[in-house]
Amino acid sequence: VKRIGIADTTFARFDMGSAALDEIAKQGEQMGLKRGRDFEMDRVTVPGIKDLPVACMNLLLGEDHARGPGERSLEGRASSPGCDIAMALGMVGAADVDKVCGHEASTSIQQAMLMTRKHILEVFVHEDEAKTEAELGFLFDRRTREHALNALWMVFSPEELSRRAGTGQRQGFADAGPLAAGR
Amino acid sequence: VKRIGIADTTFARFDMGSAALDEIAKQGEQMGLKRGRDFEMDRVTVPGIKDLPVACMNLLLGEDHARGPGERSLEGRASSPGCDIAMALGMVGAADVDKVCGHEASTSIQQAMLMTRKHILEVFVHEDEAKTEAELGFLFDRRTREHALNALWMVFSPEELSRRAGTGQRQGFADAGPLAAGR
Amino acid sequence: VKRIGIADTTFARFDMGSAALDEIAKQGEQMGLKRGRDFEMDRVTVPGIKDLPVACMNLLLGEDHARGPGERSLEGRASSPGCDIAMALGMVGAADVDKVCGHEASTSIQQAMLMTRKHILEVFVHEDEAKTEAELGFLFDRRTREHALNALWMVFSPEELSRRAGTGQRQGFADAGPLAAGR
Amino acid sequence: VKRIGIADTTFARFDMGSAALDEIAKQGEQMGLKRGRDFEMDRVTVPGIKDLPVACMNLLLGEDHARGPGERSLEGRASSPGCDIAMALGMVGAADVDKVCGHEASTSIQQAMLMTRKHILEVFVHEDEAKTEAELGFLFDRRTREHALNALWMVFSPEELSRRAGTGQRQGFADAGPLAAGR
Amino acid sequence: VKRIGIADTTFARFDMGSAALDEIAKQGEQMGLKRGRDFEMDRVTVPGIKDLPVACMNLLLGEDHARGPGERSLEGRASSPGCDIAMALGMVGAADVDKVCGHEASTSIQQAMLMTRKHILEVFVHEDEAKTEAELGFLFDRRTREHALNALWMVFSPEELSRRAGTGQRQGFADAGPLAAGR
Repeated sequence: VKRIGIADTTFARFDMGSAALDEIAKQGEQMGLKRGRDFEMDRVTVPGIKDLPVACMNLLLGEDHARGPGERSLEGRASSPGCDIAMALGMVGAADVDKVCGHEASTSIQQAMLMTRKHILEVFVHEDEAKTEAELGFLFDRRTREHALNALWMVFSPEELSRRAGTGQRQGFADAGPLAAGR
Repeated sequence: VKRIGIADTTFARFDMGSAALDEIAKQGEQMGLKRGRDFEMDRVTVPGIKDLPVACMNLLLGEDHARGPGERSLEGRASSPGCDIAMALGMVGAADVDKVCGHEASTSIQQAMLMTRKHILEVFVHEDEAKTEAELGFLFDRRTREHALNALWMVFSPEELSRRAGTGQRQGFADAGPLAAGR
Repeated sequence: VKRIGIADTTFARFDMGSAALDEIAKQGEQMGLKRGRDFEMDRVTVPGIKDLPVACMNLLLGEDHARGPGERSLEGRASSPGCDIAMALGMVGAADVDKVCGHEASTSIQQAMLMTRKHILEVFVHEDEAKTEAELGFLFDRRTREHALNALWMVFSPEELSRRAGTGQRQGFADAGPLAAGR
Repeated sequence: VKRIGIADTTFARFDMGSAALDEIAKQGEQMGLKRGRDFEMDRVTVPGIKDLPVACMNLLLGEDHARGPGERSLEGRASSPGCDIAMALGMVGAADVDKVCGHEASTSIQQAMLMTRKHILEVFVHEDEAKTEAELGFLFDRRTREHALNALWMVFSPEELSRRAGTGQRQGFADAGPLAAGR
Repeated sequence: VKRIGIADTTFARFDMGSAALDEIAKQGEQMGLKRGRDFEMDRVTVPGIKDLPVACMNLLLGEDHARGPGERSLEGRASSPGCDIAMALGMVGAADVDKVCGHEASTSIQQAMLMTRKHILEVFVHEDEAKTEAELGFLFDRRTREHALNALWMVFSPEELSRRAGTGQRQGFADAGPLAAGR
């Protein structure tokens, strides 16, 4: 059984964690995967994006390795094995200081990947990417769901990604599409 | 018994460490937690924010691991076990060079988290976030206290954070609130 | 037998991985090297450039070391030894936030090299380097192919690089050429 | 016996190392500490600020650990135990490229602290902080001496720092002073 | 016998590696040092500055430690012990993206130093430091040679650096000179 870890924040203005859990359940079903038999999901919520890297690391290494507080499995079990992949779900505010925070969190997520040798899909929505609150809400939902599918593909069907190599895929907004080799 | 480590600076213009200690004591009591029985607090003061990461690391790893100077437990004991969580309390000045220092300190706090696998709540107040000295003082106090509660939740009640996932919580200023899923 | 690892993305607007595989095969033949006897190639595709560093690390350390999902050898074998060198192929978008992502990915690729003590050739094309889509497609193709040759030289003929020391070589656009020692 | 390590550069326009040695000797005497009995000082000079992090690391780990060149104890002994704290003394030039160098050196000093779990007091003077050369010379001297006292306090009297928590201490220029808790 | 490692690039527009080798030979002779008896030199050439950090690391750790391709000793021997110091010789282009690359390479060179506990002298020439190609050529040559002398001093005569502490030394352009202690 594969485990997918999901970490999100109280800072974000959208419940990204629930969207990810919902999409993984739906898409997993379409791929013929059963929760419990084929995959499990662990979720943890932290205050802000800077708390995500160590939270993801602890999800990936599992409870036995986790020496920090606050990691709980969805099933409420006291301990869980490490996840095979994690999603780091967060929002980056519009102020300059927020952008620096986003950069610091991303840098640390990168390090957590190298230290665990596992993938963490960073799903960050920037508050200033959308023009209206409605569009922002839409973006939160779409990006999270498209990356949830990526997470499933990386664990169960990496050939789905190989098939799309260099095709300009985007998460949230419209895909950019491929270019010809040119001159 | 859980330990909460608190590191602050002589550079900051507000006694953030005392505010954190006071709030943890108050909130802990409201949560039915007794100091000594349920939790202990260790505090250390360093010159500036760049001295916080290694100070927090030593708080998290405890005296036996600490090979550096200056770490003392509040109780004046010669040695202490490692803390379960730490708070890094500091002020970032308004000059460009100060902002770079803040970024360097944050980056290193991130690394200290990954190296210890424990959370460090970074509570930084930027000197230019407030318009008056009175507002700045207020911000120092509020942000420190709201994060002190986060620290308690992370150790004792992670479900309080899960319940607030994606609800736009802020520390210091007013909360931003949640968005709808949009279009 | 030497192994060359190739990691690319679904985000890029050009199939950089196939260009690299094709060029290595062609150039290898010209150098008298036979695929299977002298070298093998492993390829993996990930969503974006931030997923490249850990993918390259897993290519370099091999399947036995890889604890993450999604790494497969080209030959479809369940496991493979570590590669001797890797190519990280990706596109950096034109927006500010994309440039920051590029920087984060590059920083992490650097770390992956130091952790494995092996070279990763970073082949990034910036969306705003070219004036037209045709030129961009050309750049994708040329840069990837010129670095594919570098990869072969680093593994099989480092003297080809020594011979070109300080000669202003470029990948994609025209070479800059050498300067005289001056005054 | 405690050891204080001092690393400075040939790039700086002021002999910061000698100022630090002199101040530690003076202040130590005032604190009733005797050199040789209570503390020792090790000094090393490197070309520029980017050479300081590894120099400090080697001072903190001692000769037995040092595998690099150029570390010598003040007493001229062939080997020395690791220092308890180090001071990284340097000047950051006024050009943009110099500021980036300063950032790189600072980032690495942070890492050296986490790797050794010891404090390194970073004492950097920026060439453009002062309006005249006389003021710059004054700043070099004052900042170095005030941080030399911090170093002594961290090793011998951490309570001197606790007492000044949140009081707006500065090194070189006038202190900023504390704020009230506000509204 | 001490070993000095030299890494340079095909990207640079000046043969920095040959200048370094030549200067070390000359200056070594003046210091009464004989190549073969007192010191050896290892050289490797890589494509660009981002390939320098891991190349330097492998030079410092020696062939037995090197698991990557492309490291060869000057003497053509199949293996060599680790170098005592390394020089990272490279050019940073004038475009914004080149400056970011330079920063990434520098950050990684810092890390390689901390991981090996040995010094790497970073000798980077920025394409926009000089006004003419002739001046740029001169700068390449002078900076490389002045740092080659620093490398020799660090290994054989650290007291030459101590003697110049705080005297405003520069490599390439004129020295800045020392300041008085001021007011």
